[in-house]
Amino acid sequence: MSVPILDTGIKLVKNVGSFGFGAGSLNDLPGYVNSRRTRAVEARGEGKVVYIIDEFFADRPEIIARLGAQTSDRIEFVATREEPKTEAIDQRVADMIAAGFSKPAALVGLGGGITLDTTKAVANLLTNGGVAEQYQGWDLVKRPGVHKIGVPTISGTGAEATRTCVMTNTRIGLKLGMNSDHTVFDHLILDPELTATVPRNQYFYTGMDAYIHCVESTGGSYRNAVGDAYSRETINLCRQVFLADDMMSPESRTRLMVASYLGGCAIATSYVGVVHPFSAGLSVVLGLHHCVANCIVLRAMREFYPAACDEFLAMAERQRVTIPNGVCKGLSDTQFRALYDATVIHEKPLTNALGSNYRAILAYDKVESLFRKM
Amino acid sequence: MSVPILDTGIKLVKNVGSFGFGAGSLNDLPGYVNSRRTRAVEARGEGKVVYIIDEFFADRPEIIARLGAQTSDRIEFVATREEPKTEAIDQRVADMIAAGFSKPAALVGLGGGITLDTTKAVANLLTNGGVAEQYQGWDLVKRPGVHKIGVPTISGTGAEATRTCVMTNTRIGLKLGMNSDHTVFDHLILDPELTATVPRNQYFYTGMDAYIHCVESTGGSYRNAVGDAYSRETINLCRQVFLADDMMSPESRTRLMVASYLGGCAIATSYVGVVHPFSAGLSVVLGLHHCVANCIVLRAMREFYPAACDEFLAMAERQRVTIPNGVCKGLSDTQFRALYDATVIHEKPLTNALGSNYRAILAYDKVESLFRKM
Repeated sequence: MSVPILDTGIKLVKNVGSFGFGAGSLNDLPGYVNSRRTRAVEARGEGKVVYIIDEFFADRPEIIARLGAQTSDRIEFVATREEPKTEAIDQRVADMIAAGFSKPAALVGLGGGITLDTTKAVANLLTNGGVAEQYQGWDLVKRPGVHKIGVPTISGTGAEATRTCVMTNTRIGLKLGMNSDHTVFDHLILDPELTATVPRNQYFYTGMDAYIHCVESTGGSYRNAVGDAYSRETINLCRQVFLADDMMSPESRTRLMVASYLGGCAIATSYVGVVHPFSAGLSVVLGLHHCVANCIVLRAMREFYPAACDEFLAMAERQRVTIPNGVCKGLSDTQFRALYDATVIHEKPLTNALGSNYRAILAYDKVESLFRKM
Repeated sequence: MSVPILDTGIKLVKNVGSFGFGAGSLNDLPGYVNSRRTRAVEARGEGKVVYIIDEFFADRPEIIARLGAQTSDRIEFVATREEPKTEAIDQRVADMIAAGFSKPAALVGLGGGITLDTTKAVANLLTNGGVAEQYQGWDLVKRPGVHKIGVPTISGTGAEATRTCVMTNTRIGLKLGMNSDHTVFDHLILDPELTATVPRNQYFYTGMDAYIHCVESTGGSYRNAVGDAYSRETINLCRQVFLADDMMSPESRTRLMVASYLGGCAIATSYVGVVHPFSAGLSVVLGLHHCVANCIVLRAMREFYPAACDEFLAMAERQRVTIPNGVCKGLSDTQFRALYDATVIHEKPLTNALGSNYRAILAYDKVESLFRKM
């Protein structure tokens, strides 16, 4: 894949406003939230806060207690079995408004990519009105959202740093984010203590999202010096974490949290390659979650990413993590056709990786044989 | 220098709001400025802009013309022979207010570290009142400054990304910045075409500021995962630039601009080491500029930074850049005593590099012999 370096066309980066970091930094959340609260009280006489939290923490009162929520605030949980749907986001916003939270002083999102993306979408809808699907696309959000604070509890997706929040619009069968400068978090708390309780497999799959994206972007033809720099250091940190004795030591969890943030910064200025389109196929047709699907795909992509594929397998072995096997076993011709369609539709990343002639390289039989390897 | 890893105590990062990048991105400045102008006109009926520009560009009308300044705006130049002084900043602010620019819609700083730091200080003073020396220190600025846009025209100092603006207060003999979240730029334009006309030596010395800072911080004992990540990639980019055939090719200038930005991000969360204190000594006592002084010092620091010293000399040779020699030749005992005092006063970086017992390592005779090598 030695294609010439082309211009990404991406020329503008909107940064997260600020972030606190380090083990125990969750303790700084109440102080930060209260400064927003005070400002809202001064401006309009009330300063209520909404906490949007991964349901995993519903029975972790020791974490909830540290958020500093007041009795007039609202705490709500997000189910993470399925990725966010536009209708569910709309319902959440309607419930919030009905409960008297139409103008909260701040939103706090605490959880993984699903929870963070939900928080971003809700923040935009509360100030812009309408429904989520109106803003799926590029730069359709007109006004800044409610001030929003992200507290990631798993590392890898980069949702804490990006200008999008991915949602599935089941009505029209579209999975697309609100890509907007207004979608970027105003503040983050990056506390690696919060990732100590993540199941090992999930920790690995999600962390690999950062690694895989950056492998794809640095292997592509649309490049720029900003994205390259972030990608290189993200890969470097992932190596330190996943080739270490223990990917979940305090030091490794700290590094992976930084990798996730920088990987998110990388995503913002670059494109993915062959892995993500195939992974999207597995998600759309077989309902596999994004991060594990990426891992399943990369294992079968030795011909496109030989070094990264080997390194990835070495990482999985070193961390004693199992990648699911045989997920396409026994699928029907109709299903393989659906997988093919859901893959080759991703023109931009496939052109990035393989050139504009990518459909010749990824002919139907070739794509089917790759899926059969998974 | 294998000292244990200690906590930096730095837990919060304020990012630059956003940045545009790439060759020709200066063309996006008028559009960005006009969006601020429109907003100011809507809010209070006028939207004038002040451009603070390195005097180097006073006779470069082709650059000035591209800024999109209107007849009601103000363009002023900054002399860069000496680094900023608090009195000069105060005078500049007074002149601006007298000319009817007490509440500009935006400030645009176009130039090197001196010009960018001047812009940051002026922005804070226009909204906070008083004089510059009131804000020298940590977190003394109470209100956000005027919206400010930085356009660096030389790469290396990281002034475009940091939360400080260094000024010399001659009244009390203090060189200290306004360290504040409010000092951070709201927007940057990173256009590597602007660095094409920098003299080769100056380009090298200034670029080395990024390299040297990151060598010092990754060699120190006060560390964190965020600073380390930025520092590593900054060093990596500097290697690509200064070990390339031509450090000033368009590709190298692009990379060095990214290195400068990331190096600035690194500075914000880490500490320097042995080079900067000695360099400060050369600046204070002999009036040498910061960046060339750093290079003079690093060449004499083989015993503290052996690998970096060798690499630096290889870079200078490859780029055919001369580092001034013999700057301490023939100095008096009084001058050497002044150099010693101005060096060992820097407790934090020297402790970072050498441990709390650093004064035993840097005894008077030792320090003098190091200066004699320069």
